[in-house]
Parts: sequence; C-alpha cells; structure tokens
Amino acid sequence: MIIRQIHVTPVAFRDPPLLNAAGVHEPWALRTIVEVVTDQGLTGLGETYGDLDHLRKVRECAQALIGLDVHATNTMYARISALLGAPGTGPSATRTATNPTGTRTEATGTGTTPTGTRTTTTETATTPTGTRLESTETSTTPTGTRTKTTETGAPTPGPVTEATATGAPAPRPVTKVTATGATTPGPLTTNPKERTVDRVFSPFDVACLDIRGKAAGVPVSDLLGGRVRDAVPYSAYLFYKWAGHPDDEPDRFGAALDPAGIVEQAGLLIDEYGFESIKLKGGVYPPDEEIAAIRALHEAFPGLPLRLDPNAAWTVETSIRVGRELDGVLQYLEDPTPGIPGMSEVAAKVPMPLATNMCVVTPEHFPPAMAARAIGVLLLDHHYWGGLVRSSHIAAMCDAFGLAMSMHSNSHLGISLAAMTHLAAATPNLTFASDTHTPWQNGQDVIQPGALEFTNGAVPVPTAPGLGVDLDRDALAVMNEQYEKCGIVARNDTSYMQRFTPTFTAGRPRW
Amino acid sequence: MIIRQIHVTPVAFRDPPLLNAAGVHEPWALRTIVEVVTDQGLTGLGETYGDLDHLRKVRECAQALIGLDVHATNTMYARISALLGAPGTGPSATRTATNPTGTRTEATGTGTTPTGTRTTTTETATTPTGTRLESTETSTTPTGTRTKTTETGAPTPGPVTEATATGAPAPRPVTKVTATGATTPGPLTTNPKERTVDRVFSPFDVACLDIRGKAAGVPVSDLLGGRVRDAVPYSAYLFYKWAGHPDDEPDRFGAALDPAGIVEQAGLLIDEYGFESIKLKGGVYPPDEEIAAIRALHEAFPGLPLRLDPNAAWTVETSIRVGRELDGVLQYLEDPTPGIPGMSEVAAKVPMPLATNMCVVTPEHFPPAMAARAIGVLLLDHHYWGGLVRSSHIAAMCDAFGLAMSMHSNSHLGISLAAMTHLAAATPNLTFASDTHTPWQNGQDVIQPGALEFTNGAVPVPTAPGLGVDLDRDALAVMNEQYEKCGIVARNDTSYMQRFTPTFTAGRPRW
Repeated sequence: MIIRQIHVTPVAFRDPPLLNAAGVHEPWALRTIVEVVTDQGLTGLGETYGDLDHLRKVRECAQALIGLDVHATNTMYARISALLGAPGTGPSATRTATNPTGTRTEATGTGTTPTGTRTTTTETATTPTGTRLESTETSTTPTGTRTKTTETGAPTPGPVTEATATGAPAPRPVTKVTATGATTPGPLTTNPKERTVDRVFSPFDVACLDIRGKAAGVPVSDLLGGRVRDAVPYSAYLFYKWAGHPDDEPDRFGAALDPAGIVEQAGLLIDEYGFESIKLKGGVYPPDEEIAAIRALHEAFPGLPLRLDPNAAWTVETSIRVGRELDGVLQYLEDPTPGIPGMSEVAAKVPMPLATNMCVVTPEHFPPAMAARAIGVLLLDHHYWGGLVRSSHIAAMCDAFGLAMSMHSNSHLGISLAAMTHLAAATPNLTFASDTHTPWQNGQDVIQPGALEFTNGAVPVPTAPGLGVDLDRDALAVMNEQYEKCGIVARNDTSYMQRFTPTFTAGRPRW
Repeated sequence: MIIRQIHVTPVAFRDPPLLNAAGVHEPWALRTIVEVVTDQGLTGLGETYGDLDHLRKVRECAQALIGLDVHATNTMYARISALLGAPGTGPSATRTATNPTGTRTEATGTGTTPTGTRTTTTETATTPTGTRLESTETSTTPTGTRTKTTETGAPTPGPVTEATATGAPAPRPVTKVTATGATTPGPLTTNPKERTVDRVFSPFDVACLDIRGKAAGVPVSDLLGGRVRDAVPYSAYLFYKWAGHPDDEPDRFGAALDPAGIVEQAGLLIDEYGFESIKLKGGVYPPDEEIAAIRALHEAFPGLPLRLDPNAAWTVETSIRVGRELDGVLQYLEDPTPGIPGMSEVAAKVPMPLATNMCVVTPEHFPPAMAARAIGVLLLDHHYWGGLVRSSHIAAMCDAFGLAMSMHSNSHLGISLAAMTHLAAATPNLTFASDTHTPWQNGQDVIQPGALEFTNGAVPVPTAPGLGVDLDRDALAVMNEQYEKCGIVARNDTSYMQRFTPTFTAGRPRW
C-alpha cells in the first residue's frame, strides 16, 4: 500500500479562555489534520499541533513520505529525522534521505508556504526502479487574513480590556519576567526538549495505522496488541477560566475563578460526560487557593480521584508543602515544579506519586529521571512520543521501571481522541483515567459525529476498521476557513494574557 | 482471524559436542514447533525451547488461546500469565482467565502428556456469545523411548567414555560442585530469572505475526516497522568442541581444543557462510588459553570484530584482567562474570563494553542494571523477551538508555532464524552482527530449503508474506520421531559432560 498523496490542512476552532500558568487560551485553538492516501485509495487520518512552525515541518516532511509503503514507518522516521536535521544525520542530510536499499530519494517540492487552505503532496513521477520520486505541492492558497499577528506568530499588543468585567484576574506581583510560549518559525531545527522528529512523525504514524487497520478489517487497537478494556476512562479536566473571552460574550461554561466556580464546573462536566475522576489545571492562583479548590472538590465529589497540575509553577519548597497538605486527597500531583532535579526533591518528600508531561517528554529523559526517582506516573501523549507504536514502547518502559500511566492532552479534535482511545485500550498498564480537552471543544469537530461518545466518563473503543472515525469534509472546510481568518498562527497563551494584564509573566516557578 | 487449532510438536536434531561453561551439548538438541491455524485456514509458525517442562507449558497455554483473534496478543499474554501463575494473578487464576469483556473462559483440556508425537488443540464448541470454549487434545501418542533419562529429565549416569580418544578434555580441578542445567517438570510455576510467561508467549506471538503478514501480504518485518536493512549480518559462532560425540564418529567440523583448532573452525565457517565477525564461546579453558585463541583469531582474521563469551565463568578479578589484556582486540566482552553487581564492577574497569544475555533477561532487570551501569550491549532474544513485538519494546528501551544491541542464540531451526532476521531487519539500533547456531544444525531443518541463505555472513530478509518460510512436513515428522527416540527430554550439558568427566562441575565463577 503505497502512499500517493498526503493532504495537510490547518484548522482552527473556538477555544474558551482557559487559564493556566502560561497565561490564557486564545479564542482559537489550532490543529493540523493529515490525510494519507494510498495507491489503493485507502485514506488514513492523523491530527497534530497547529502552530505554524510545526505545520511547516509537517508539510515539508510529508513530501518525503510519498512513494513509501504504509508499513515502512522506520524509513519514514529516518527520512523525517534527516529532513529536520536530527542529531547524527548531519546538515547535508537536510534535503536528502537514504532509503533501505541505499539509493537516494530526492524531494523536490517548491517550498512550504506559511499557511494555506490545504497542502497536497502528490507523487508525480516514479521511475521503474521506484527509487526516485518527485513531490509537488498543489492547491496552495495565499496566506490568510492576519490582522493581529506578525510573521513570527507573536501577537502585536492589542487593546487592554477591562479584566474584571470578563472575570479576568487582576494583575499579580511579577516574580520573574520571561518570554515563553512563543514559537519561532524559521529554518527547520530540532527542539531537544520535545523532540521535533517524534512530534512531526506522529500524525503520519497514526494515519498509516488507520490505513492498515482499514485494509486488515481491524480497529487500530488490534494493531497495538488488541484492546484490554472495552471503554477508555477519561477525567473531568477542570480549568480556572473567565466567563468568556474579553472580546466576546460569556460562554456556556461560565466563569470559574474560585473553589465554588471549580466545583460548579466539575458538576457541569460530570453531568454531561459522567466522568469518574477529576483533574484541575492549577498554577493560576496562589497555592492556598488551589488547595482550597481541591478540598472543595474532595468534599463535593467524595471518592472521585483528584489530581492537581500547576504546570511547574511552584518552587520545590512550595511543592512539598502543598503535597503534604493534600495527603490523602490527591491521586497524584502533576508537575508541581520544573525539571527532573526539582521533581526528584519533591518526590522524596510528598506522600503521593508525582506525574509529568513536562520533565520526561523524550526517551532520553528516562535515564536521568529514573536515576533521580523523579516521577511515579508518566502521562503518555502520542503527539510528542512519536505516534502510537512508539508510545507503546514508552508504555513498556514504564512497566519495566514501575511507573504508572495516564495520558496527557492538549486542545484536540476527534481524530486525536480516537487515536488516544485506541492506544489506551491496548495498553494494559495505562490504568489511570486519561486527560482530554474534548468538553472544551464544545461539539466542534472535523469528524462525523457518533463515533466517539462518552458513557460514564469513558469512550467505548471504536470497533470499526482503522481509527473508526470519518472526516467531515464540510466541517474541515469550515474550520480551515476559520484558520485562515482567525489571525492566529501559533499558540501563545502568555502574550494573549498580557493583552489584558500587561504585567503578567509566565516565569516558573512563580510561587 | 480466529485461532481454531494449535499444533505443538517437539522435535530433535543432531547437535555436535559443543563445549561451554555448563558442559557439552548432548547429541540431540530439542525444539518445539508451534503451528497456529485460523478459521480462514491461514497457518502461522513459531519455534521455541524443547525442554519438557517448557513443552508442557506451551501445550497447556495453547489451549487457552483457541477462539482468540490473532491480533489479541494482550489477551493471549494475560491468559498465559494467569495459567502460569504469574505475580499478581493469584493461584486461583491457574485454570481460568478473564477476557476483555469480563466473562470467564474455561479451558477444559484433558491434561498434558509428558511427550507426544504432536499435540493438537482444537476449538470444539463455541457458544453463540463466543465466551465459553472447550479445548481437547487429539492425536497424542504415548511417550516414546526413553532409555537414558528419568522422569525428571536428568540423565542417569552412563558409561564414561575415554575422553582423549574423541578429543574430550581431561578432568580439571573442581572448584565448586553445583548441579545446574537440570529442569524440573512439575506443577506450572514461574521462573523469575527468565520470565516464564515471556518464554511461553513468544512462539504464539511469532506465529500470529506470521499469519497477520500472510493476510496483509507483507513480510513480518513490515509489521515491526519495516526493514531498515535488506540483509541481517550474523557472526561466526565458534565453539571449543570435541571431534565427535564419544559414542559416535567424528563430525565434519572436527575437534577445536586449542587456538589452532579455533582458527581452523573459523576458517571453515567463514568459507561456507562468509561471516564478517566472530564470536567465541569461552568459559571452557583457563582464561589464558582463551586469550590465546582470541589473539590467534585476531591475527588470522585481521579487521574482523571479535567477541568472547565465557558464560560468567570468571571472577570479577579475572574478568578485569582478561578485559584489559584484550584491549583493542575485542568488540565487546560478553558475560564475563555472574550477576549485575559483578558485571558492574568489571564494566568500570575494562576498556570494552560488556554484553549480556545472562544478567539482563527480563524487563525487571533493566532498572538495577542501568543504575549499576553493568552493561553496554544487550543481546536481544525474542524467545525469552516475549516474542517479536515485545523485543521491539526492549530495543526501544536500549535506545533510550544508550545500549548497543546484538542478538543471542541457542540451538535453533529455520523458523527461529526467520523470526530473528525479521526482527533484526526492523530494529534500527540492532547494529552488531547477531549470533546464530545455524551452521551447527548442519543442514537439518523443519522448513523447506531456500528461504534463508547466507550471503557474506548475512541473511537476506525474506520478502514473502509472513515469516517467508514454509514447514517441511516430512522433515517435521522425521525430527519428531527423532525426538521420540532420542531419549532426551531436557537439555543438560552438565550431566552429559559428567558421563565422560565425572568430576566436571558447572559452578560459576570457575576461574
């Protein structure tokens, strides 16, 4: 099953003003939708980050995969590594890749456009030996409206809206001024922290598994060892939030700025989805306020496992104090403080396990983290762990090292939810309920409805071949148009927050 | 693709008198051949150890897999874990297993026979819900001739043949008397050292991948990420050996009892197979003699990577001395001394990496071995690492922890060579030439000839669907008959050696 076309489509969807240590979610969340099409006409879907820098890499790398069999994921990974200048491939490998037989493949695309309605990479010429191919891009529209952002994706300062009117917090004391969260489009480079190759490879891995499942007539979970649970439990992922975006009407979720608001939000999500565990995104207010929110949840929902994730907003000392105060209340404490050494110090002195999606985000982080006994729970995320198969490798490593597992989530759509559900279903040691932003997408999606429904907080694992979800092309077109018009090309919670609270800083640790 | 039948057939084939720290290979090597047959008539092959205790477990567990889909490897693993009483499953799980939907499956076999021509496990009754199944055994013949072995597989003492006439070494000083190498058939129990579940699961994993590959029309390597090399290099695996078994004529390989004999053997194997690296099984003679053999190989085959594997026959002090003396000569030193702590001490003081197939043989060994920096090279072996997919997890773990990889080998046949070749082909970081006993099987095989041929010491990766090898049923019948008649039911190099050298001991470390 040879890959003949890859469509790469950026989309935007409405996102509520969810608060976190880095700032606040912008009105639009971005994702990139990948469709891989084979010579037999089978299509596979993948979903990944939408930031412009990442989108460009995905487009660039898509060209290098044309002509490969959908099973050839090792070669795909090698070509993407070479394109992105991964360690060991050398600068001369930037535009070339070596296939298994040692012949050279050249991708002669016309270059990536900053944005575009839809990028289609198509095989246009294959020699009889199959070793040389040319890729071209088609259907690329000019860049869309971009009224509020610069070329580098950093929003220009906008009018500062009165924060209190919309529930925005008043400015807090600045402890450290650090520019974070901004991505810098430019030459393809590696990002050692969250290994770029794994991030770019992931949607192609998912799409190829979707195709292989369709061809074999089995769900993707069967390609990962078969499901060990028929439904995958997710947690109610609570956020402090404003009632609405400063420029908009309040949304249906309302404000959640104190313990009572958080409990109310939990009630809403649990009523609608049936969640049986709760995670609160913290790092927004001083720790004592967040402790109070956790205690209020503990009282309002007795017996439901609780987690708190301040996104490394605390010092080691604060983390230890909070951990000890919440003894017997938290199932685990997620990323209280930055870095493996800090997490290690905290882990030794708090009663509950520490979880992370920040200090162990590539395989190379395992050795130092294990040596330092920094974590007890790993949050898997196939978007940055290199897709579903590589995530299953990570799960096996967690099993060997005695780590429990849950699953991390960014704002995402249904393709990702399907992929997460198949992976979790086929991972015996992924026993904690997983995170998902699904409720916050408020029904918006690029997939046809009905395939993924929550029952008692869990998503029944699709049993249809492949991922078990189908693209809604009308929705895709609408969301791509939204992308063109929204004026956002890279997530930047910090600068968006600074529009309303100019003194805000995302420096960590903050408390 | 539902599993309807599983055939389990023990076989025996002629094995030369290969010397090692545990003693000497008996005249017959044992293996177990597994055939999995689906409702669609597809057949998949697996190959595993032939010791009676293991054979019984494979037969017992085969019954529990009838009725499962070939993709449901997680459930297969769970059922085997339950049957073998793996940690956490509890004794009450010995005869029951829980399937993913929570209903109970009961295997009501009639019990395993100690040996038998061929055991066939067949689904005989499935209820409409598919949750209950009964397994029966058919075609079981009585136990075969067993003139020289007891029920426990420990050979009774036989006549002591004059050693020197056949090249057998004279008795050496006994440093420690320990009975090793004997397996003890009895109630199904776990073996913590080489995790029993992984060993029993492995042939079923391989057979199911063979079936999936055939169904998808792709080689097994494609189900593991696709091949990154078109041929898999193996090493010339040299053994000190007698000219022939004491009761037989000399074999065509001749004696190899000193450096000249080892060099001659290397020349023979390299001439016939084209090997481009060399491994010597040591632990047979005092270390200085084996150092001399390595130096002789270094001189006779300049530029060829060399390895020495004394199977933990040396003390830490001896290991360090040998390692330092062979600086610049050995590619790596394999298992010089027993245990992770000892290996760690040696690793810190010798110039070359240490490899192992002895001190890291289950995932649980990784944490202490990594903490102690005990090894630099892991020898993968899908027979005890739980099959091909789980081996790929181990390979990923090695990548994360910076371990190089080669592949370990026991006496095996073509099904195993095919599986090893697919796994190695699809494992980017398995960069060292792998071990294989193939030359020592001297053309005997259960597969039809032609599928696996060595070129320049490497086996081209089969590109036919599945493993790419077919069973030779005539050969299987002959080798099963040999099993019935050979009188060996469990490998025991030590007691065989003691027939000829009564004072021999396999106690380690010896020097």
